[in-house]
Amino acid sequence: MERWNFGANREVMIAPSGTTVRGVLKKIMENLDKDDPSRPTVPLGHGDPSPFPCFRTTVLAEDAIVDAVRSAEFNSYPPTMLGHLPARRAIADYLSHDLPYTLTPDDVFLTMGCAQAIEVTIRVLACLGANILLPRPCFPSYGAHASSNNLEVRYFDLIPEKGWEVDIESIEALADENTGAMVIINPGNPCGSVYTHQQLKKAETARKLGILVVADEVYHHLTFGTNPFVPMGVFGSIVPVLTLGSISKRWLVPGWRLGWLVTSDPNGILRKTKVISLFLLDLISHPPTFIQGAVPHILEKTGDDFFSKIIDILREAAHICYDRIMEIPCITCPNKPVGSMFVMVKLNPSLLEDIIDDMDFCLKLAKEDSVIVLPGVALGMKNWLRITFAVEPSALEDGLGRIKAFCQRHAKKH
Amino acid sequence: MERWNFGANREVMIAPSGTTVRGVLKKIMENLDKDDPSRPTVPLGHGDPSPFPCFRTTVLAEDAIVDAVRSAEFNSYPPTMLGHLPARRAIADYLSHDLPYTLTPDDVFLTMGCAQAIEVTIRVLACLGANILLPRPCFPSYGAHASSNNLEVRYFDLIPEKGWEVDIESIEALADENTGAMVIINPGNPCGSVYTHQQLKKAETARKLGILVVADEVYHHLTFGTNPFVPMGVFGSIVPVLTLGSISKRWLVPGWRLGWLVTSDPNGILRKTKVISLFLLDLISHPPTFIQGAVPHILEKTGDDFFSKIIDILREAAHICYDRIMEIPCITCPNKPVGSMFVMVKLNPSLLEDIIDDMDFCLKLAKEDSVIVLPGVALGMKNWLRITFAVEPSALEDGLGRIKAFCQRHAKKH
Ligand SMILES: Cc1ncc(COP(=O)(O)O)c(C=O)c1O
Ligand SMILES: Cc1ncc(COP(=O)(O)O)c(C=O)c1O
Repeated sequence: MERWNFGANREVMIAPSGTTVRGVLKKIMENLDKDDPSRPTVPLGHGDPSPFPCFRTTVLAEDAIVDAVRSAEFNSYPPTMLGHLPARRAIADYLSHDLPYTLTPDDVFLTMGCAQAIEVTIRVLACLGANILLPRPCFPSYGAHASSNNLEVRYFDLIPEKGWEVDIESIEALADENTGAMVIINPGNPCGSVYTHQQLKKAETARKLGILVVADEVYHHLTFGTNPFVPMGVFGSIVPVLTLGSISKRWLVPGWRLGWLVTSDPNGILRKTKVISLFLLDLISHPPTFIQGAVPHILEKTGDDFFSKIIDILREAAHICYDRIMEIPCITCPNKPVGSMFVMVKLNPSLLEDIIDDMDFCLKLAKEDSVIVLPGVALGMKNWLRITFAVEPSALEDGLGRIKAFCQRHAKKH
Repeated sequence: MERWNFGANREVMIAPSGTTVRGVLKKIMENLDKDDPSRPTVPLGHGDPSPFPCFRTTVLAEDAIVDAVRSAEFNSYPPTMLGHLPARRAIADYLSHDLPYTLTPDDVFLTMGCAQAIEVTIRVLACLGANILLPRPCFPSYGAHASSNNLEVRYFDLIPEKGWEVDIESIEALADENTGAMVIINPGNPCGSVYTHQQLKKAETARKLGILVVADEVYHHLTFGTNPFVPMGVFGSIVPVLTLGSISKRWLVPGWRLGWLVTSDPNGILRKTKVISLFLLDLISHPPTFIQGAVPHILEKTGDDFFSKIIDILREAAHICYDRIMEIPCITCPNKPVGSMFVMVKLNPSLLEDIIDDMDFCLKLAKEDSVIVLPGVALGMKNWLRITFAVEPSALEDGLGRIKAFCQRHAKKH
């Protein structure tokens, strides 16, 4: 018998890593019927439109990377823990356009996509021994990182009937003197919501509670309804805001892994309370230097024509999505999506013959019709579904048509 | 008075993050005399030759990145947690050249440089509740990650008189049934050593102790003495080896952040003991997709002429470094460096008038002569110095000349 000091013969002390979108989608995709190559899979499960030609990023962004690589000036380790100064300055300037005060490069930390900004934020809150308030439904990375860092999570509801507005009363009821932060995702994933200035202003409650606001704005400016994008940072002088973002969504390059963690905190509360020094300790991996080198060009030079082309496609796609869903009796949509890439819809399994719940729905839909959709249970809301409309419009029509046919086939006969 | 639930008004529970090369060098660089712009700083402190024109990477590697970006095929999130299959296959093939068995893509995890491979390895060992054996002197990232993960560290000595060979007896004395792994860095940082097949074979002791070997081979193939590079993986059928590496050093692109964590374990012990599943849980950030896309081209197509040019420059630089140091009475060099980019030398402060120790030496050398050298204390060996010779040869001559003059000025008069 071999003896090894590691592995299954030891009591493994791993915190459960929680659910991830990737993990749930993997399970659903394993259910695809691989014998049917004639019917291409329609991926309405995750938010990555970049493989579709109409969602190709701007040539200007590619040029910026190519120039940085060709210059051979960005082959070295980045000079500091924070990231290249011109990149941090460019991000500070870019975000300041939408703020009533000016950010400085010292407010900006470069991260490996918004994902690492989330990871670092959660680790810092765990270091502080705090608990955190998360929305329900929520992008599941927050919960997954919290559980692997033993950070206590308390969920407050978003109210579907009020445009997925935050239930401020439940926030006040949940918070205590150990609560360190609340998370707001705007534009919303999974809800496709965009909060008004008035709705965001309610975050003043955070001031009263003595907690900071973590504003996940990875979908910043991806809005196509009547509400424009308002960054949470506009309230930074009332309550300190950590703004999390990246170029992943607006530039359609999630594979490039360039994000930021920004202190929108003109009164310097986060510095005074020494929270900032924790971020410095914790930031370990850096985005590749030449991508940092390309950031100023990407942020400063991308033309409005690129952005508005993408917004037009997304608006049209959101429209198609909403209209087609309205035709399906067992699915209801409380709000037409006006931002991000998703809509959250309610499934009524009691109208279906042999579908128990959202997970069952998604597994069977994958198997029978090769359409991937995310079950709400992955986001904390059983019997809801998250549908991505950020795919090529023809694929979207195809996918929604198959969902409708699937629901018809499974509808209870009366 | 403002009240905030986070920050300095709470008892902050941060594990000390330990020493990093970057942190120590920052302190020393703050001591540079900025009033003397006529005398450029000679950076012999850290291992990044990429800013020097003679150490520019191959155009082929740049081409590979440019082609991947231009193809627009790598803008999406990477398809799996492990990384792009062609990239993993290319790394498996590349490393298999030097092994008596063949690695598969499933043995390979892509990481953000070797740095992230270290981070993940330490986190997994911490999950297992193990302790770890590290060499002294050691690249300090291991200790820093161990302390921030509450992983117990035990140090074994490298013996300067025997070419920085591992003291195997001390390993046997240190290990117990909680010991999970021992770390071997070869070619050596900070020692500039390259172990022979015979010396590496002593790692069979790990088999007896039931521990795995973590082989940090980030300087793989950077050897210019008589010992060729032998990967620890050649002993993988005796004891499971985790091979950590990257393109940072051999291709001179540390800013590109592409590394790997590879199980050199033909008997599948790490799978049987479920250690592998821990790695899967833990790998959170991925290298940007287009860099993954460029990997096959970089690994498969780089010509020997590029590698041998770099080796020739390093050999010449190691030579200059060793010769010049021999001329300095208060510094002795137990071994001529034959690999990596560093040499570890012993300082005798008793021969100097007003220098207390290695840290004092480095601070004053920076201030008076604008030369940066790493104090041994950062690597666990007080009154040693680590000198990087991987700089443009003329800068190296200049720097070593200034070190000699500095030592002469501070020598005790007798
Ligand atoms: C709300 C939210 N935050 C963060 C992320 C991660 O973004 P990135 O690709 O920049 O890491 C996503 C990705 O889908 C997201 O939906
Ligand atoms: C021994 C050792 N391991 C790992 C690393 C990190 O390498 P990378 O740049 O690939 O992250 C270094 C960097 O200097 C090193 O010296």
